[in-house]
Amino acid sequence: MPMLKDPSTKYKPFPPVHLPNRQWPSKSLDKAPRWLSTDLRDGNQSLPDPMSIAEKKTYFNKLVEIGFKEIEVAFPAASQIDFDFTRYAIENAPPDVSIQVLSPCREDLIKRTVEAVKGAKRATELAVKCTKLVRSLTKDVDSNTDWDFEFSPETFSDTDLEFSVEICEAVKAAWGPSEAKPIIFNLPATVEMATPNVYADQIEYFSTNISNRDQVCISLHPHNDRGCAVAAAELGQMAGADRIEGCLFGNGERTGNVDLVTLALNLYTQGYTPNLDFSDINSVIDVVEKSNKIPIHARAPYGGSLVVCAFSGSHQDAIKKGFNNRQVKNEQFWKLPYLPLDPEDIGRTYEAIIRVNSQSGKGGSAWVILRNLELDLPRGLQVEFSKLVQNQAEIKGQELSNQELCNLFKNEYFIDTPDKEYYKLVDYSISNSSSGERTINFQLLIDNKPVEISGKGNGAISSFVNGIKNSLGLSLDVRHYHEHSLGKASDSKAVTYIDTEVNGEYIRWGVGIHEDVTQASFLSIVSILNGIRRT
Amino acid sequence: MPMLKDPSTKYKPFPPVHLPNRQWPSKSLDKAPRWLSTDLRDGNQSLPDPMSIAEKKTYFNKLVEIGFKEIEVAFPAASQIDFDFTRYAIENAPPDVSIQVLSPCREDLIKRTVEAVKGAKRATELAVKCTKLVRSLTKDVDSNTDWDFEFSPETFSDTDLEFSVEICEAVKAAWGPSEAKPIIFNLPATVEMATPNVYADQIEYFSTNISNRDQVCISLHPHNDRGCAVAAAELGQMAGADRIEGCLFGNGERTGNVDLVTLALNLYTQGYTPNLDFSDINSVIDVVEKSNKIPIHARAPYGGSLVVCAFSGSHQDAIKKGFNNRQVKNEQFWKLPYLPLDPEDIGRTYEAIIRVNSQSGKGGSAWVILRNLELDLPRGLQVEFSKLVQNQAEIKGQELSNQELCNLFKNEYFIDTPDKEYYKLVDYSISNSSSGERTINFQLLIDNKPVEISGKGNGAISSFVNGIKNSLGLSLDVRHYHEHSLGKASDSKAVTYIDTEVNGEYIRWGVGIHEDVTQASFLSIVSILNGIRRT
Repeated sequence: MPMLKDPSTKYKPFPPVHLPNRQWPSKSLDKAPRWLSTDLRDGNQSLPDPMSIAEKKTYFNKLVEIGFKEIEVAFPAASQIDFDFTRYAIENAPPDVSIQVLSPCREDLIKRTVEAVKGAKRATELAVKCTKLVRSLTKDVDSNTDWDFEFSPETFSDTDLEFSVEICEAVKAAWGPSEAKPIIFNLPATVEMATPNVYADQIEYFSTNISNRDQVCISLHPHNDRGCAVAAAELGQMAGADRIEGCLFGNGERTGNVDLVTLALNLYTQGYTPNLDFSDINSVIDVVEKSNKIPIHARAPYGGSLVVCAFSGSHQDAIKKGFNNRQVKNEQFWKLPYLPLDPEDIGRTYEAIIRVNSQSGKGGSAWVILRNLELDLPRGLQVEFSKLVQNQAEIKGQELSNQELCNLFKNEYFIDTPDKEYYKLVDYSISNSSSGERTINFQLLIDNKPVEISGKGNGAISSFVNGIKNSLGLSLDVRHYHEHSLGKASDSKAVTYIDTEVNGEYIRWGVGIHEDVTQASFLSIVSILNGIRRT
Repeated sequence: MPMLKDPSTKYKPFPPVHLPNRQWPSKSLDKAPRWLSTDLRDGNQSLPDPMSIAEKKTYFNKLVEIGFKEIEVAFPAASQIDFDFTRYAIENAPPDVSIQVLSPCREDLIKRTVEAVKGAKRATELAVKCTKLVRSLTKDVDSNTDWDFEFSPETFSDTDLEFSVEICEAVKAAWGPSEAKPIIFNLPATVEMATPNVYADQIEYFSTNISNRDQVCISLHPHNDRGCAVAAAELGQMAGADRIEGCLFGNGERTGNVDLVTLALNLYTQGYTPNLDFSDINSVIDVVEKSNKIPIHARAPYGGSLVVCAFSGSHQDAIKKGFNNRQVKNEQFWKLPYLPLDPEDIGRTYEAIIRVNSQSGKGGSAWVILRNLELDLPRGLQVEFSKLVQNQAEIKGQELSNQELCNLFKNEYFIDTPDKEYYKLVDYSISNSSSGERTINFQLLIDNKPVEISGKGNGAISSFVNGIKNSLGLSLDVRHYHEHSLGKASDSKAVTYIDTEVNGEYIRWGVGIHEDVTQASFLSIVSILNGIRRT
């Protein structure tokens, strides 16, 4: 059966919400919600290979370390593993962390569930009905535990709104919440069935129609069937929600629950603390991938391996300039092109940012050379080198590693390549005449045979080039000269970049590195000679 | 550097848009936009291993097959591969498909770009300025090609809105569009920097402030840095946009471009045709994964491998009931719990929907047995079998395959397991007395030794059970009896399910299959005997 040309015979549009006095589109997010991680319950139940007890323990401890104060750990009545793990969580949770468990509305299952959470310092109880039964088993008889109660009209997003409010009013009356201990109403998009603004409308309707609003905590539980769970959670908060239930990197049934990492870091990049700490995101990824056995996608916001990098040449140029500006101007606020978050804030390095494929421009390879060899290439050399890189990347058909790029550069400009050099500078002496003309005498090894050369000019480089012309008959017209120091303080070297027009025919760049800046510039010319000879 | 406790010292919130007469939150999506695929340009440039020419060709042809009428193929001035591929696309595109290329505003690059698209039947030209130069090179001198012009203020989402409108007015005047040939303004979220409602506000502002709105096509190009690209595109359409630029499964720089598969199928599930055909989504996934060398995530909407399946017991039960209802009532409209789209519409099978791990309930394994063995287990047997399944899944620590589940069932209830049976029924005869009492004589092989047995009762089953009690001293109290046919017409068999209380101590189920329904029920009892003997 192919896709229908006219799907209106099989699918109906989701009806919009009538909300005449809609407020949320004019609101902004400005604080963190209460977070509930359901990684160990909703996330775990949806894995082809659910977590072992050991994996659940590691995961649980990571959630605590990140800063979660409410953690749903299991469906204790469902299996012995879930029951046992609930006991572990109850006994090992820090005093300020609430353990939440799930139970359907069946007396035997509720009893088994309450048994699993006995003795907890804090516990959030979630059931679909039977509030009074739960109450009679919990807060009415056990005052040692700080009981929270969460009620969820499970198909909220697909249910008549008036009816949802009505049933929640009844449950609220049965539980008896207070401002200090509000009842939690979980309003899930169990299946995401409309654009996220519709969900926000539903939340705003509920939030403005439920009574004793200050005794109610509205909790969102969005799924991602239409790829809009993050948006639904954010617009839902603007519409009045207080709490979000989701999983790290959006694990969960089908397309997953809303991704709590993205929500938290979205807040962070707007300058609001999420109360969750992802400063070591790699260790979080490690636990999540090992436990779930599903890899984080390379393009997952914030965590994906390709997310803090740029392959496009124009992006790379802009990022490179942005970093330089930031360093030079010592700017307080983060404003870097293509990078909404400073990668160092989540423990990722700048090194990974710029990666070079055949589509990359000069900026990318120049950045890699700068970060790895500390060579700050002048623009003209960037252009010359980037053509070589592009050609190499096309031949390879793959991204070039930093190592490959550095080797390509060193090989092309004869840096640390003694075995490949046709010409080597052995030594030199310079004498100045009173007229200001300099005379240079230097010895080159050419194909390992020593050749004595002398030249004249008004400076060191011009006299060296004059010597080359005299002895080798090669005309090198120097166009640009750049120099910067390399390394720190006492053991610093000079690096020089020179480009010359060769016999009036083409341009060639050379690079020289030496403790002595004059010798470094001669080595740039020798680098050019070697390049000419090879081609 | 860890995450800042107070990020307000480093990050500023994105400023909201002042839009007093906001209209979009009351709109709904009700038609497909114009689609532009930029898989081969924006998508390709961001790959660690960009596509080879052969991969680009395969990908291009797949895009045409899906139904894309506008395809951005390259940045022709950037590399020889891009130039050559542009020529291929121009020469091989069907007449109704426009080829779009990208050029930055540099005269040499624009000339090289125009050269690459010469001779096209239709072409969309995209440049950042230099509209007049482009015009003088294209529509003013070459009337054989149907030139479209797209202009993009590249950092639109981060630019003053009045300024964006002003610059677009100037470009529009320079190009000279018409209602028949509107100018395309691409308003990208080059980096997603705010909640998606803010982007929608920006689009509504632009759409209501640009002059000659009917000569303008507003195109969106959302990126996914905050995980909201799909929402941004949808809300942006509600705010007035006509066209969407993105990639299949959201490939592209960093977190990717907006995912066109999700957008198209989101429309489809609301009953609107997307004008794109994903009826064979597996073949699309195949091309995308081979070309991009980045796998589609298991939880990607619509395409992910885990998306049309349910592991949770309650979800499985609901889906199973939904399918049964749908079959029985022959419903026109699709309304299945947890499945917003009929998997068959995109070429995925029902078989994959329900998968069984240690968190699954009775519904899941019962479904697998039904689909694979055609056995429609009664509820009590589902419960008994599901405990066995859960135990097995916990031991394995992994999802059980359909094959493993079927083998587990057949082994447990002695179906097609002649080598494992302690008791076998050889033959039987029944006689009725005038009082209505029946007498049965049957032969069992017990550990391969023949034993003659007789029993009495008021029915076949009761007399068989009476014989068992007489000869083996085992009391079997029959509780329920279920029967249904198996297979079609002439060669159909009967399958019977019987549960008995054994010696008043516990319940055990048996299953029997035979052409003769009476013998099938005896075989159920024998299945129970074998089960008792093994435990």
